[in-house]
Amino acid sequence: MPIYNAPIKDMQFILHDVLKATETGIPGYDELERDFTAAILDEAGKLATDVLTPLNTTGDLEGCRLENGVVHTPSGFKEAFDAVREGGWNGLDLPEEFGGQNLPYLMGCAVGEVFCSANMALNMYQGLTHGAINALLSHGTDDQKAMYLPKMVSMEWTGTMNLTEPHCGTDLGMIRTKADPQDDGSYLITGQKIFISAGDHDMAENIIHLVLAKAPGGGEGTKGISLFVVPKFLINEDGTPGARNGVSVGSIEEKMGIHGNATCVLNYDGARGWLVGELHKGMRAMFVMMNEARLGVGLQGYAQAEAAYQNAVAYAKDRLQGRAVTAAENKDGPADPLIVHPDIRRSLMDQKSFVEGARAFTFWGAHLIDRAHRLGDKDADGLISLLTPVIKGFQTDLGFDMAVQAQQVYGGHGYIEEWGMSQFVRDARIAMIYEGANGVQALDLVGRKLAADGGKHAMAFFEMVKTFIKENEGQEALKADFLDPLKAASKDLQTAMMYFMQNGMKSPNAALAGSNAFMHLFGHVCLGLMWARMGLAAQEALDASTGDAAFHETKLATGRYYMARHLPATGMHLARIQSGADTVMALPAEAF
Amino acid sequence: MPIYNAPIKDMQFILHDVLKATETGIPGYDELERDFTAAILDEAGKLATDVLTPLNTTGDLEGCRLENGVVHTPSGFKEAFDAVREGGWNGLDLPEEFGGQNLPYLMGCAVGEVFCSANMALNMYQGLTHGAINALLSHGTDDQKAMYLPKMVSMEWTGTMNLTEPHCGTDLGMIRTKADPQDDGSYLITGQKIFISAGDHDMAENIIHLVLAKAPGGGEGTKGISLFVVPKFLINEDGTPGARNGVSVGSIEEKMGIHGNATCVLNYDGARGWLVGELHKGMRAMFVMMNEARLGVGLQGYAQAEAAYQNAVAYAKDRLQGRAVTAAENKDGPADPLIVHPDIRRSLMDQKSFVEGARAFTFWGAHLIDRAHRLGDKDADGLISLLTPVIKGFQTDLGFDMAVQAQQVYGGHGYIEEWGMSQFVRDARIAMIYEGANGVQALDLVGRKLAADGGKHAMAFFEMVKTFIKENEGQEALKADFLDPLKAASKDLQTAMMYFMQNGMKSPNAALAGSNAFMHLFGHVCLGLMWARMGLAAQEALDASTGDAAFHETKLATGRYYMARHLPATGMHLARIQSGADTVMALPAEAF
Repeated sequence: MPIYNAPIKDMQFILHDVLKATETGIPGYDELERDFTAAILDEAGKLATDVLTPLNTTGDLEGCRLENGVVHTPSGFKEAFDAVREGGWNGLDLPEEFGGQNLPYLMGCAVGEVFCSANMALNMYQGLTHGAINALLSHGTDDQKAMYLPKMVSMEWTGTMNLTEPHCGTDLGMIRTKADPQDDGSYLITGQKIFISAGDHDMAENIIHLVLAKAPGGGEGTKGISLFVVPKFLINEDGTPGARNGVSVGSIEEKMGIHGNATCVLNYDGARGWLVGELHKGMRAMFVMMNEARLGVGLQGYAQAEAAYQNAVAYAKDRLQGRAVTAAENKDGPADPLIVHPDIRRSLMDQKSFVEGARAFTFWGAHLIDRAHRLGDKDADGLISLLTPVIKGFQTDLGFDMAVQAQQVYGGHGYIEEWGMSQFVRDARIAMIYEGANGVQALDLVGRKLAADGGKHAMAFFEMVKTFIKENEGQEALKADFLDPLKAASKDLQTAMMYFMQNGMKSPNAALAGSNAFMHLFGHVCLGLMWARMGLAAQEALDASTGDAAFHETKLATGRYYMARHLPATGMHLARIQSGADTVMALPAEAF
Repeated sequence: MPIYNAPIKDMQFILHDVLKATETGIPGYDELERDFTAAILDEAGKLATDVLTPLNTTGDLEGCRLENGVVHTPSGFKEAFDAVREGGWNGLDLPEEFGGQNLPYLMGCAVGEVFCSANMALNMYQGLTHGAINALLSHGTDDQKAMYLPKMVSMEWTGTMNLTEPHCGTDLGMIRTKADPQDDGSYLITGQKIFISAGDHDMAENIIHLVLAKAPGGGEGTKGISLFVVPKFLINEDGTPGARNGVSVGSIEEKMGIHGNATCVLNYDGARGWLVGELHKGMRAMFVMMNEARLGVGLQGYAQAEAAYQNAVAYAKDRLQGRAVTAAENKDGPADPLIVHPDIRRSLMDQKSFVEGARAFTFWGAHLIDRAHRLGDKDADGLISLLTPVIKGFQTDLGFDMAVQAQQVYGGHGYIEEWGMSQFVRDARIAMIYEGANGVQALDLVGRKLAADGGKHAMAFFEMVKTFIKENEGQEALKADFLDPLKAASKDLQTAMMYFMQNGMKSPNAALAGSNAFMHLFGHVCLGLMWARMGLAAQEALDASTGDAAFHETKLATGRYYMARHLPATGMHLARIQSGADTVMALPAEAF
């Protein structure tokens, strides 16, 4: 049975020593004292370890089943969901006026990581609800907010997002679901939606679907799309769920992983819905919360790697196999533990240095979102828009790779379902696909975000890296191991951007053929920056003899590993980018 | 339902234009005329497409089940196995005296790839039989050969290899299975073996287990291990299967993939066995056929990627989504096919260029094995020993990555089991683990093979690359795109080897910490060499206007892609290696 313990010490280090939360001046951040965040994370950690983790395997083995139109979640899921609900966890970072606690999104992320590591499939019911709440918060009318939000914030009701149809996912302009306007201002929604995560289940008394559909008069393509709210049960005058609406579950998909989450085909047969936001501007309504949703998926990527890593460490310390090449370390035993072997170390350090870097990057991203929302900081908003596809695409690609490495530590046992390592790999796989497949993230980054606002956010990022290096060059302990590699990696990134600027105008393919490599190159520079910042914070703590010296020494050693072993990937990605589109686009389609 | 068509044209190109099989002077290769190999591959391809491929999904969905001690394979497996048996496919490259056709191992590999791409789980029953046959061929007595081999070559009986026990896999010195000598010269075998692929099933009338066990007097560790043959049913005097032997199936493992193959826990309770080869020299007997077995697994790595790639191509041509950034290509349709998008192209080219390079590398390796066995060529034997861990480790790592990329082309549909892409990924995953996990391959390469015979095989490899470049530098069409990148990559490899020589003596960890990176660096140089050789063959065919010009143009374009996009990985791996062991081994175990 896989284990999981929330990495609270590491989270606290990022919140307080790296981001220095209480000093940021962001409204609400003044509350985030060390003791306060420790108390929240401790509670979340207990729930995760005691309740959510033990159900993760159950969810995988049992999956969800559809019987007579009703979706049944795996044994124990309802009780665990009740525990999350009763703990008030969903409202943590939601507005007080609807029953939330209004803490920063940053704290929502930290807790989200813990729940996701423990049980991703179960956590998704909450994640989707969060997404639907954000859509209503941004675009709903006051009446809609009053009708839905209190129940959704408390998670008595959950939410879903309905975009994909059988013939289109990325290319939403092709959707066929129709919205037929009625005299009373409502619409009748008809069509089929697929891949609807948390689409139906038995853990809440109502489910609030947010649905993209085409209403008459909107024109072709994405311009004709509007967003509608469609409750599973229509709401009575007194606010309670009433008659069943015309939406039903066609089937549950058999998936590679996240079996505990019901991925539904939903059939809308004249279901009654109400417009959210402006008519024909549904795409805009949907995309306004994209940064948050995508950051949440980027978080899933490293959260699965974290859980897999914890188990790989335990196995590597426990399993006796072979002898250390230098000298036996477990002389009285039949063999040494796996962890003595250099290639096992290499694998564990790969995982550890990635996960901790990704956590810092994600928390920094969440802090930028708070800065944008709570301070109206347009620069922060621009920067997080630029970084979001990197957080989503890079972190889910690498998170999956690291889960595969963790599984590999187990040898043959890693392939046996009973040990749980396969599940981490299978669950992590979806994060590379949904909320915009990673190819779409790379396209968004290179085709849109990089040049947005005249490229000023990319410039600001480079300026930030440059300034950081300059300000800290005097730190002898950091220069060779952290700042020099960061400088070199950042130069690779700038060179890649120059290549796009010089070639992308003449030939868009020259840029797009390098989009995947660029996303990865960018991701490594971001994690390099985070490691340099963490290295600085750890060194400062050591110099001042504050906190846990062993922890800070470990931080520095882990950071040095990232710089020495992960960061050299930037040169490879740059070479790929500079090779342009010629070899990529050379073949006619029939030659494949 | 996934498709698969044997890549016969590509195989023929490697056999005849690259390896120039009939000109090698290896006994038996003179038979391998174009028409003859085409006929064999055509027949194998038909069987694969018509019979094996349609059962691949069935095998995954149904899996094997154990009922009252009897293992039942998935529906249709028995009939398909009969078809393979009746076609005489198993004896293709086995000695005529036992009923085989004595064709080169090279042809066995080509056919093996086809069957493995079509249905890996089913093909494994044959693969394990092949391994057991080789063990008996090398070390069995004449009586043992006469008793077992005719039935095993015909596959009336199948075989297994029993090494792993619950507490040890890699570290076989710790095995506990005992062999108790009897007065009649036989042994009673007692112990538990796990992860026994094809361990039991209902497709053959007998199963011949080859089992590692400890007989008295052999001393500690691997020195005390002997190899035994233990039939499921004891053999009657007339050669027919008789009484049940004392070996039974404890359970079938629930695995991530290859569900159609019964991975068994086998319990030996005083089962009667007979020594194979010398007493206490079982490890030597087992390892003598390691090159072949590991090459076979390296083949599985790219064979799964090939099948996944074929389906990704079909989907990318069929699925309409988005518009080409340059100009719409499917103007009358609602959108363009996925294949117009540069990042989809990038992914397909990644897959195609890897698979074709790996096929050439594997076929070249098989040809080296034939050269060693059929000509007694010690240099070929030394070279393939060096290359075997690269073929196994590098190709299964990359093969898995490429199957993941193929799955990614499908977007959300790739995650749904019904489409079959998940199965390719899940099946491919095991090849990184079994037959020596890839970390063990890297250790074998760096810790043993590199310095074997005073490093002469590594030197011979470099000499071969150098000579090839020198001999062909006059070819203007190849120089910049193929030879220069190969030269640079080969230099990275030599630099890495120098690093090991200078540092590995003082500190073995300095070499072992770079073993994984070295295996990958070596793999890319090998595929670079193969692509240069394929590029030359294609260019020569174009210059001479022989064969299919479009095919040869495609070869050159695909090779240029490999050189421009895959090969830059060598610099990254070199940097990792040169960073040494310091960051890898820095942490005490408790810091993880």
